[in-house]
Amino acid sequence: MIELQTSIEQVRGFQAAGVACGLKEGSALDLALIASETPCAAAGLFTTNHVKAAPVLLDQKRLAQNAAGIRAVVINAGNANACTGARGLQDAEQTAAWVAEELECGVGDVLVMSTGVIGVPLPMHPIERGVIDAAISLRADGWDGAARAIMTTDTTPKMASVRVTTDQGTCTVAGMAKGAGMIAPDMATLLVLLVTDAALDAATLHETLASATAASFNRIVVDGDMSTNDTVLLLANGASGVRVEDGATLAAFQEALTAVCLHLAKSIVRDGEGATRFITLEVVGAPDETAARRVAMAIATSPLVKTAFYGGDANWGRILAAAGRAGVAVDPDRMALYVLAGEDGALGGLCLVQDGAPAAYDEATATEVVSQAAFSVRLDLGLGQAAITVWTCDLSHDYVTINGHYRT
Amino acid sequence: MIELQTSIEQVRGFQAAGVACGLKEGSALDLALIASETPCAAAGLFTTNHVKAAPVLLDQKRLAQNAAGIRAVVINAGNANACTGARGLQDAEQTAAWVAEELECGVGDVLVMSTGVIGVPLPMHPIERGVIDAAISLRADGWDGAARAIMTTDTTPKMASVRVTTDQGTCTVAGMAKGAGMIAPDMATLLVLLVTDAALDAATLHETLASATAASFNRIVVDGDMSTNDTVLLLANGASGVRVEDGATLAAFQEALTAVCLHLAKSIVRDGEGATRFITLEVVGAPDETAARRVAMAIATSPLVKTAFYGGDANWGRILAAAGRAGVAVDPDRMALYVLAGEDGALGGLCLVQDGAPAAYDEATATEVVSQAAFSVRLDLGLGQAAITVWTCDLSHDYVTINGHYRT
Repeated sequence: MIELQTSIEQVRGFQAAGVACGLKEGSALDLALIASETPCAAAGLFTTNHVKAAPVLLDQKRLAQNAAGIRAVVINAGNANACTGARGLQDAEQTAAWVAEELECGVGDVLVMSTGVIGVPLPMHPIERGVIDAAISLRADGWDGAARAIMTTDTTPKMASVRVTTDQGTCTVAGMAKGAGMIAPDMATLLVLLVTDAALDAATLHETLASATAASFNRIVVDGDMSTNDTVLLLANGASGVRVEDGATLAAFQEALTAVCLHLAKSIVRDGEGATRFITLEVVGAPDETAARRVAMAIATSPLVKTAFYGGDANWGRILAAAGRAGVAVDPDRMALYVLAGEDGALGGLCLVQDGAPAAYDEATATEVVSQAAFSVRLDLGLGQAAITVWTCDLSHDYVTINGHYRT
Repeated sequence: MIELQTSIEQVRGFQAAGVACGLKEGSALDLALIASETPCAAAGLFTTNHVKAAPVLLDQKRLAQNAAGIRAVVINAGNANACTGARGLQDAEQTAAWVAEELECGVGDVLVMSTGVIGVPLPMHPIERGVIDAAISLRADGWDGAARAIMTTDTTPKMASVRVTTDQGTCTVAGMAKGAGMIAPDMATLLVLLVTDAALDAATLHETLASATAASFNRIVVDGDMSTNDTVLLLANGASGVRVEDGATLAAFQEALTAVCLHLAKSIVRDGEGATRFITLEVVGAPDETAARRVAMAIATSPLVKTAFYGGDANWGRILAAAGRAGVAVDPDRMALYVLAGEDGALGGLCLVQDGAPAAYDEATATEVVSQAAFSVRLDLGLGQAAITVWTCDLSHDYVTINGHYRT
């Protein structure tokens, strides 16, 4: 039984800070620094977008060369440093160099993440000042400020931590994330920094991260857009003395890491730009997992489905129509569709469609279910045994407002 | 030089009517009937959605059996007769049978189209009354009423006609369409009925229709959703005495048909649900046409791009980011992006991105261009010679309002 905290108190050997350097308006926190006293094993997963931001290219290079010696991650919000050409790469390198100078480590020991507007050169004077400020502000309990500093259109900071008990003692897995729009698989269109005081080698770290991400960040949809900057990083400094290699310890660590990722992923959907409803979408009875995923994604990204959810309208025809265009040979006559109350559908529900035609149900009850802040939709394709669950939100007036005027 | 009319006066041998039978609220026209005095050659293109409405299945069967003997098309709005199971097929057959009875033709000579809400059985009493009313209302100049009767969320009727001069005399190509949401290739997510008084065999008719559709209805995007009911029909009754087989006559006919389809397709985008801007999107410099199309579609369906257009924001980073996730191996460093004033870009414009990085341009001028009711965007991938042009619209508050409350 996992006990998950929605904050991060301390993770042995790590320090964090969030400062305001002027990238955001007013005096909002906009630069975060996370540092480890000792070198960390590190793993990263990055956007599959062919247009990759400079910090993504930098981190990929760093991890290829130095996956066992990472000391710090610097993250700025307000500017994505994407589509900024050769200058963007220099700016990311320079940011890392300033951090290395402050922390007295190698420039190759520092990773960089950026989020915000695309196509505008990073303002380097604020960044330099921010790095210096952050370095002297580092504290073991500085996570809340760091999580706030990486927010863009997010309305709340997103953190989670789990304490893992093993026969070698206890260790902690913790993480913070930002993301509210441009959210779609694959992969996790967002920034996530995960840390642990357990000790893992880089290969095991990468495997556990890939597994946790597949079950969490790669199953959420806000708007179907995919960012140029998406990055999930996991650092392990071993400060707890717990060594994660195999057996029960590895299983417990994996379970904790997946729980942290799943909580952060769901937090992102819940905080989706303009979102008013949190929808758990299960596609079952699929011929294989790829088909299940395609159908789920077609539904979860459909503007017509998402606006109907916003309107509290159990418009199941749009769900079936979206499933029909997913590139999977579905058979409408075998489909069944259910809506269920509650985030995990545990509050019961009703069948809207049986054998591809309207079931006998009460429209008022259906409307009541899909008018809740959280509900579940289950589509049974009637074709096989494969299934998938994804999480998504509705498409509201506020989404249009937020994204129609993001830069101004 | 083609002279296109945005109305349909008469097409020899055809009659049309639009009547109100109670499928829509109030006394709005909701059932259209088009009849030919003599049997027509007919061709049809249908949705590729695996969830196909009953009238689509019926028409596909009819055309396979009787592509040279079609006499009439009956179209209702307000109810799509989709996801209605075996009963839906019976209802579509019954509708055709009532038309056949009124027109004294075979039931196999009648095609059916439906549009509106999915998943609700067709109310047959109103349909029966509507068919009888429409049959006695048929007139050679009844097209305006027919075009109005097939509207759902459309705000204007959509018609076009072209007179073709050949060495055998003149013939006419005309068409009407409905569609404002659920618009995306492939293929034309809308209802279109095209008629001509030229004579063509069914095979030639199908070829000319496929060619015209590829250049028009398959290049428009409103919301990226694809309907269960999309149908484009073309009927040729030969009443003009002009026989279209090959050479200059075929070329002139094809040109006229494509012009009619293109006008109707653009009308649909212009009337897109909640649309405030009409955007011509050119992707050039692609390695091949499939790649060009994929990139264009990723951009044209991106909620982030569409909301930025709504906000009059020349947010080119979102355009590059959408191109990067299109599944094409684009190279950001080779990309160039332009915005141009006017529907066809003829009013000139400016370069926003060169070699993947911001060009030196005036933001106020860029904002001015993309704040117009019509403008063009040209993305040069710098990878080859292939190009495509598609037409799309923005994503506005009104789109959300319209689709959040469509059924209520």
